[in-house]
Amino acid sequence: MGKLTLSSRNEIMQSSPIRKLAPYAVKAKNEGVHVYHLNIGQPDIKTSPDMIEAYHNIPPVIEYGPSEGILSYRKKLVQYYKKVNIDVDESNIFITTGGSEAIIFTLLSALSPGEEVIIPEPFYTNYNGFAVMAGVKVVPITTNIDNGFDLPSISEFESRLTTKTKAIVICNPGNPTGAVFSRERLQELVDFARKHNLYIISDEVYREFTYDCRATSILQFEDFEENAVMIDSTSKRYSACGSRIGNIVTRNKELLALILKFGQARLCPPSVDQQAAEAAVDTPDSYFSEVITEYTKRRNTAYRELSAIPGVTVPMPKGAFYMVVGLPVDDADDFARWLLSDFRHNNETAMVAPASGFYATPGLGKNQIRIAYVLKEEDIVKAVNIIRLGLEEYKNR
Amino acid sequence: MGKLTLSSRNEIMQSSPIRKLAPYAVKAKNEGVHVYHLNIGQPDIKTSPDMIEAYHNIPPVIEYGPSEGILSYRKKLVQYYKKVNIDVDESNIFITTGGSEAIIFTLLSALSPGEEVIIPEPFYTNYNGFAVMAGVKVVPITTNIDNGFDLPSISEFESRLTTKTKAIVICNPGNPTGAVFSRERLQELVDFARKHNLYIISDEVYREFTYDCRATSILQFEDFEENAVMIDSTSKRYSACGSRIGNIVTRNKELLALILKFGQARLCPPSVDQQAAEAAVDTPDSYFSEVITEYTKRRNTAYRELSAIPGVTVPMPKGAFYMVVGLPVDDADDFARWLLSDFRHNNETAMVAPASGFYATPGLGKNQIRIAYVLKEEDIVKAVNIIRLGLEEYKNR
Repeated sequence: MGKLTLSSRNEIMQSSPIRKLAPYAVKAKNEGVHVYHLNIGQPDIKTSPDMIEAYHNIPPVIEYGPSEGILSYRKKLVQYYKKVNIDVDESNIFITTGGSEAIIFTLLSALSPGEEVIIPEPFYTNYNGFAVMAGVKVVPITTNIDNGFDLPSISEFESRLTTKTKAIVICNPGNPTGAVFSRERLQELVDFARKHNLYIISDEVYREFTYDCRATSILQFEDFEENAVMIDSTSKRYSACGSRIGNIVTRNKELLALILKFGQARLCPPSVDQQAAEAAVDTPDSYFSEVITEYTKRRNTAYRELSAIPGVTVPMPKGAFYMVVGLPVDDADDFARWLLSDFRHNNETAMVAPASGFYATPGLGKNQIRIAYVLKEEDIVKAVNIIRLGLEEYKNR
Repeated sequence: MGKLTLSSRNEIMQSSPIRKLAPYAVKAKNEGVHVYHLNIGQPDIKTSPDMIEAYHNIPPVIEYGPSEGILSYRKKLVQYYKKVNIDVDESNIFITTGGSEAIIFTLLSALSPGEEVIIPEPFYTNYNGFAVMAGVKVVPITTNIDNGFDLPSISEFESRLTTKTKAIVICNPGNPTGAVFSRERLQELVDFARKHNLYIISDEVYREFTYDCRATSILQFEDFEENAVMIDSTSKRYSACGSRIGNIVTRNKELLALILKFGQARLCPPSVDQQAAEAAVDTPDSYFSEVITEYTKRRNTAYRELSAIPGVTVPMPKGAFYMVVGLPVDDADDFARWLLSDFRHNNETAMVAPASGFYATPGLGKNQIRIAYVLKEEDIVKAVNIIRLGLEEYKNR
């Protein structure tokens, strides 16, 4: 007779690794304990006021928009990109529902089922889910905490090449590492990808969040027009994660034509949110300078406080608002759970993301955690102090 | 050396069949010709005022919401479903970015790559695209214009069964046919699906749009809890197509757990639009009775006018706002193109959707078109008159 079954994708599709800790955080809160959330990428920064304002101007009929996104918004984005030295026109831009859909559509369009994408690890966990959706295989290359998770050498990439390799995904500035890749290292990767006919899919949603340096876009390399696909999003730039407006930028017209076919199937991205995103492009520079000043302080504070803990390894992050930190523990998953379930300091504790979830290679990152410095400085100090005291007690428990 | 290539999905992914006509419509408009759009499902009905109002109440930070959707919205939907005699709780509801994402996530979670889904044709074209995205195969069963595109007999379904058959997709009330399936016919299908361990994925986004009858939900059948998945959307109900808020409803907890994993990868549906959709549940009954009165008039007018044209076959549609119409032509694709490019009446013409695009079996529906009666009555009269005059001239051209 058989029985009703689920998709075989159930076996390869991971649950969110951070999610597994959520019940422990809920339990702590129910016991009246204050939990500092260093685990999530939800900034407390106010959404761009220009964007908020635009939500008040709603048409009488909220209609479908074009599948490739509203034209006036795409034109407005051209201006934005000009400001950050990326020279494209509106025909190069495809609007998506968040950066998530941008990556899914790119993988569906660039890779055939069963083909491979090389991704330096640790990487943004959800790339795994997108790969399952698109039926493609993630091939990780491990990067090193000791050089700040810089791009692996070309020989490393070469050693992962197979007849099925079709693309490389990078995240620059990087989540979860905070790494920002130099133009020189990127040029080497570009030359490699050109030689082997690979796409480079560059997730650049943290472009604005760099400290003491600037991020280089994959679209700024010459003679690489067909291979370069850039993933973007308004979520972090304007602190509007819930708006779910992202986009793809590429000069590869054939690829865009296929992406459009997938886009037509799902009709269009949200109309009102696009209108708000269009208004957000006029956000004054002062908004960003305030935000970057704030994040620079938070980064410096988190770095200073964490570095002072014996046995902790902290590469100075150059961008985004994350850092991967090595701890003097064997099992950071267990430590993170223990912090939530057993450790209290003045009736407070901290929640961190174990880094193992950001590695595709089993067993790696077991002594690392990811910190998102999205809290106020004083709270970062308190939260890191909890980690310090927690490590002592954990060692002696 | 090789070269950079696209995904093999490019060969099986269709362009929107209606889209192919778009350049001809643009050209006609540029020549100053008025085009009546009977081709699209974008209603001219005002969006629910309750929904519009809720867009004015924006939080200072537009944050990520839960991957399964905002709890208060899911609870509110439980009330809505109670009103339409569907008894579920919030744990059965998963919010998506439009009905589109709801179907994609359901196919990804219920079917393994390569498995088959049976769909009565003509069907909503985008089901093809969703199937490509999910890597599953559509197996069509042709329905008949002479019985109003009613559900095929169980023996027809039986003849399509293979070891890979995993689900049946129905659209009820139906796009593009306007068919509404009786409880008796659905019961037969339910019994068949239970016997063969198949999911029934029932797209019920046109629930409110029925005339002289009521739609039966797949969730209203007993002893079918695990197999039944309902697809829903706010797009048509509140005339808010651009809000992109849909949802899945199922009592199958294992399936929902896998859907949640895909949902976590894409983070969440748009937050502000969900807030608006929550407010929309309070839309007064008078809004719907006015809308249904208006659509009933439009349907009756379209039916009356089309029936009066010699050689035209028009089943009386019972729901949605579409009808598939048989024309006395060999090639409705050519006729639709010709109407836009060559035919003018008082400097006006009409755009219709050739029905061939709604059939998966090659060569079918060649003499059929789909009409969306989303125009004012007087415009429907004028547009159908253009079809009538066009058919005469086309025959004699």
